[in-house]
Amino acid sequence: METVIGASAAILSTVCWLPQTIRTWRTRHTKDLSLMANLLILASMSLWLTYGIMLHSWPMIVANTVAVVLVGSIIIAKLKFG
Amino acid sequence: METVIGASAAILSTVCWLPQTIRTWRTRHTKDLSLMANLLILASMSLWLTYGIMLHSWPMIVANTVAVVLVGSIIIAKLKFG
Repeated sequence: METVIGASAAILSTVCWLPQTIRTWRTRHTKDLSLMANLLILASMSLWLTYGIMLHSWPMIVANTVAVVLVGSIIIAKLKFG
Repeated sequence: METVIGASAAILSTVCWLPQTIRTWRTRHTKDLSLMANLLILASMSLWLTYGIMLHSWPMIVANTVAVVLVGSIIIAKLKFG
């Protein structure tokens, strides 16, 4: 049961990040994105990832690894395209 | 050590939600907010909260309860002010 809820949470929170990442790399327009907000989110995700590793929680590890990659790629786009 | 990392993650992810909530209720302008995105985030947070309760993880429970309240209040503002 834990695994079902955890996996659903992991899938849903990953789905939340896909549209912004796809949009950012397709349009290459990043003017309306806040660098500070995305850096805060990246730091927060990294801490949850570390915590997930400590708890041996696979849903947290998978969700936060994917989120760190997606938010990281948004930050790279922001730094690259301004 | 788990508690320190978990508490830092909880504080940081709460801080991420404060500016949008404060801005939304101060300006009462919600035209630029996506209702669908906020509903997805609310569903995702609710699942992480349920998962946190199952794992007896206090940082996850506190962070996701606060986030559900903040995102919930953004959704109420969106429905109220359009």
